[in-house]
Amino acid sequence: MPHITLNSDEPGVRGLFLFRPETAGPLNELVDVLLCAPNSLTPGERELIAAYVSGLNDCNYCCAAHSAYAAAQLPGGTAQVREVRADLATAAVSAKMKALLRIAAAVQQGGKNVTADEVAVARAEGASDLEIHDTVLIAAVFCMYNRYVDGLATALPDDPGFYDVRAQGIVAFGYLGLLAKARAQD
Amino acid sequence: MPHITLNSDEPGVRGLFLFRPETAGPLNELVDVLLCAPNSLTPGERELIAAYVSGLNDCNYCCAAHSAYAAAQLPGGTAQVREVRADLATAAVSAKMKALLRIAAAVQQGGKNVTADEVAVARAEGASDLEIHDTVLIAAVFCMYNRYVDGLATALPDDPGFYDVRAQGIVAFGYLGLLAKARAQD
Repeated sequence: MPHITLNSDEPGVRGLFLFRPETAGPLNELVDVLLCAPNSLTPGERELIAAYVSGLNDCNYCCAAHSAYAAAQLPGGTAQVREVRADLATAAVSAKMKALLRIAAAVQQGGKNVTADEVAVARAEGASDLEIHDTVLIAAVFCMYNRYVDGLATALPDDPGFYDVRAQGIVAFGYLGLLAKARAQD
Repeated sequence: MPHITLNSDEPGVRGLFLFRPETAGPLNELVDVLLCAPNSLTPGERELIAAYVSGLNDCNYCCAAHSAYAAAQLPGGTAQVREVRADLATAAVSAKMKALLRIAAAVQQGGKNVTADEVAVARAEGASDLEIHDTVLIAAVFCMYNRYVDGLATALPDDPGFYDVRAQGIVAFGYLGLLAKARAQD
């Protein structure tokens, strides 16, 4: 049961967006820019960073949601996301993505855990300064989202198909588009 | 030295805002809503939560900045911020603020660390659901900002008066107002 009385039965962060629309706006704009907007990292790669960090933070809602969003947009689908989450060293992703995911894992532990060596490896594998920046910020953003969702003890969805339906919405409309639809239905 | 090549010599998160204006917008809007907009918690109380969490995350830039912003807006000024950061149990803040700061400290450790008991104590001391929500989100937001600032190894300001000057700007113009000014000067 959530720690506070929400104004809907929506699970996870969706209930929080409806409870506090003033913060939902910038929160959704932030992930829309980071995860959906044109970028040299694909949407699937960026969602994979979000899913990976959410798994490290043990946030069930965010990890399931962003794993579904990553799977919907990566060539290797669900199996590829599972592999990365199970063992990054042997997973079927590029050396550049492995280096970026290692930076994301360091950010999850704490900002000062990111080393110059980890950044140098990512750069040697072809990562740009913008890609390194966005990886650090995506990882940091999910350290926020995970704490927000679990810190208020939000509910998980009853329907196991919830995340896949939502993934289709994210791919079609992005985060800001889905927020606008949720508000219109409210 | 920052892990990436920035396009300015601005310290801390300011250099990151100028490097990536697309994310600077929603990041500033978020803290403007949470820390400056009308709220039953005063701006000083909300900045105190930001400073306290940034201290727990050992983020020098954010802790110094938000300690200055809190001090500029709290009746007890710098001494009150120092007391809270040194020993919350004996510090001169209300029982409600102590309970909210304990929730913020739990969020800093991880979302699942927030207990129903901690929330019940805050409520018994008069905290509303919105205040509990905002406390959790402010703490989560600074777990993001701290990782962003330190994960990219941004520089500290050379001038020790930097934070106090910036505090005057925050009080006068808010986060969005200051961002607009920084962009106009760029």
